[in-house]
Amino acid sequence: MAGAVPLVEVWRGEVLESMHAGHVVICDASGDVVQSWGDPGKVILPRSSAKMIQALPLVESGAADAAGLTEAHLALACASHQGAAVHSEMVTTWLSDLGLGDDDLRCGPEEPRDTEARDALIRAGGTPCQYHNNCSGKHSGFLTLTRHLGAGPDYIDPEHPVQKAVREATEDVTQETSPTHAIDGCSAPNFAATLHGYARAMAFFANARDDGPVRQKAAARLRRAMAEYPKLVAGTGRACTELMQAMEGRVSIKTGAEGVFVAIVPEKGLGVALKIADGTTRASECALASILVGLGVLDPDHPATLRRRNAPVFNRAGRVTGYIRPAEGAFSA
Amino acid sequence: MAGAVPLVEVWRGEVLESMHAGHVVICDASGDVVQSWGDPGKVILPRSSAKMIQALPLVESGAADAAGLTEAHLALACASHQGAAVHSEMVTTWLSDLGLGDDDLRCGPEEPRDTEARDALIRAGGTPCQYHNNCSGKHSGFLTLTRHLGAGPDYIDPEHPVQKAVREATEDVTQETSPTHAIDGCSAPNFAATLHGYARAMAFFANARDDGPVRQKAAARLRRAMAEYPKLVAGTGRACTELMQAMEGRVSIKTGAEGVFVAIVPEKGLGVALKIADGTTRASECALASILVGLGVLDPDHPATLRRRNAPVFNRAGRVTGYIRPAEGAFSA
Repeated sequence: MAGAVPLVEVWRGEVLESMHAGHVVICDASGDVVQSWGDPGKVILPRSSAKMIQALPLVESGAADAAGLTEAHLALACASHQGAAVHSEMVTTWLSDLGLGDDDLRCGPEEPRDTEARDALIRAGGTPCQYHNNCSGKHSGFLTLTRHLGAGPDYIDPEHPVQKAVREATEDVTQETSPTHAIDGCSAPNFAATLHGYARAMAFFANARDDGPVRQKAAARLRRAMAEYPKLVAGTGRACTELMQAMEGRVSIKTGAEGVFVAIVPEKGLGVALKIADGTTRASECALASILVGLGVLDPDHPATLRRRNAPVFNRAGRVTGYIRPAEGAFSA
Repeated sequence: MAGAVPLVEVWRGEVLESMHAGHVVICDASGDVVQSWGDPGKVILPRSSAKMIQALPLVESGAADAAGLTEAHLALACASHQGAAVHSEMVTTWLSDLGLGDDDLRCGPEEPRDTEARDALIRAGGTPCQYHNNCSGKHSGFLTLTRHLGAGPDYIDPEHPVQKAVREATEDVTQETSPTHAIDGCSAPNFAATLHGYARAMAFFANARDDGPVRQKAAARLRRAMAEYPKLVAGTGRACTELMQAMEGRVSIKTGAEGVFVAIVPEKGLGVALKIADGTTRASECALASILVGLGVLDPDHPATLRRRNAPVFNRAGRVTGYIRPAEGAFSA
């Protein structure tokens, strides 16, 4: 598995049923590796863990302020939300304020992951819309910047001014030239970099100052917006939301598809990026919670922590059949 | 990952985004390993891949015939169905014929995985029942045997006569003493054995003869029932169903949770068992399809094969963003 190390174990009864290996990097303000597991040079696609980077041009350009976006909008621009009513309504109003609608989005339709919203949609005989898509906040941000720049409607084209700005911001904060990009689940380009590069980017966010240059100001603002509105960044029951709530605004975290997770830890000036080699979310959540506990910023006994770091596996009758746990010795110093 | 070898790659654009390692064993009539990847001695929980073994006592005891079960019922007893109308209706009739109802099941309620059935349930304001559970056919088989034996209602207790019979059958066909059991998603005990043991069990099914002893007769009948009713064993769009259809009744296959998959190949007298170390279904499907192609029993160009063995990954806008493929050189001889 190319340098990945065992990080997370899945037990059922007395049997070690499954195992997840991966890579973790913790960086400081200098961009140096403070601690790592696996291969820091592993090239990854950050997926939705890059959303706060993708939102930098929106804020830096003045587009967010010109459109009257609030900190809640910025949190939603960094979100993989679950299409609950609060998310969908905020996106539709946002688009409407821009004089735009669902058809202007390019993220594709997605059934709401929020059960209540999903059931309401089905009962109403509706079909999933693009605004239900977990990335619709990010795309509303892209549309806001597109409008501000007077650019064309195909804002997901890698050559569109919005995506060129995202690439420039990505390469700046990762301090790497992206070797390639791929197309994300929402059709936006997603820029490859090393895991070290993305940890370095998170350290940039962690150390960004309000009295610094414009990119630092934007990064500090986005980091705070995420921590201030954890329910907008994901939703009820989700790891991003529950763990940020447990850390009471001190740390900003963001999950990504295929087992990516990142954290911004301002009080320590640290950035964290991790990738589970097999792409499994249950493992990335367990690993991130373990790292945050190790850094002393997450209470190991908080219920939200225990639900990831020593997560009981329930079966359909509600019986506990096993646990998801850090691999033996995985996160010791 | 304790001897697991790379089996499946997940590509997105030009990036090898995720990787799955695992173990595979192919056994012949003698129970010897014909070919293997990874560790044949790996102890696994077979999960739902053991359903045809769990159904042996139902047939051998005469309970199935006494209750008038058809081959379709036997296929459903071996199923992880998706709660489509055809599955739910067959289970409810089966229970009713026994004078039983949903409350007699012990599998727990589960929302139908079949979208049409799920939406109909939500529109009707209903809640998921136990008969919707993907294991409800297996449990109906357990209840049929329970009735036949005049045993008590708690048929999922490991000390219940039904589960004792399942354990005896498991240890006989795996030719191993199960070191432990765990509780499955449906609350039934699930008996641990080595991957070699489960491949040996599948070879027993592959070589079982109608003119053989009672256990062989039962195994041959169950193997044929699965192959004859592939839609009952899983459902529309599912790997078990589509690949069995593609093989036109020549091979019986069964998926299990946490990356297990098994195959019974009568024309070659072979049994196959595989386990993806990280427990991921997309990888177990790709690996099993690759093994079946390698054995010459599955057309590599059949659409059902291509959907697993070189599976395009679609995003929410319907764009192909990558592929799930066998790892380089993974399944060469």
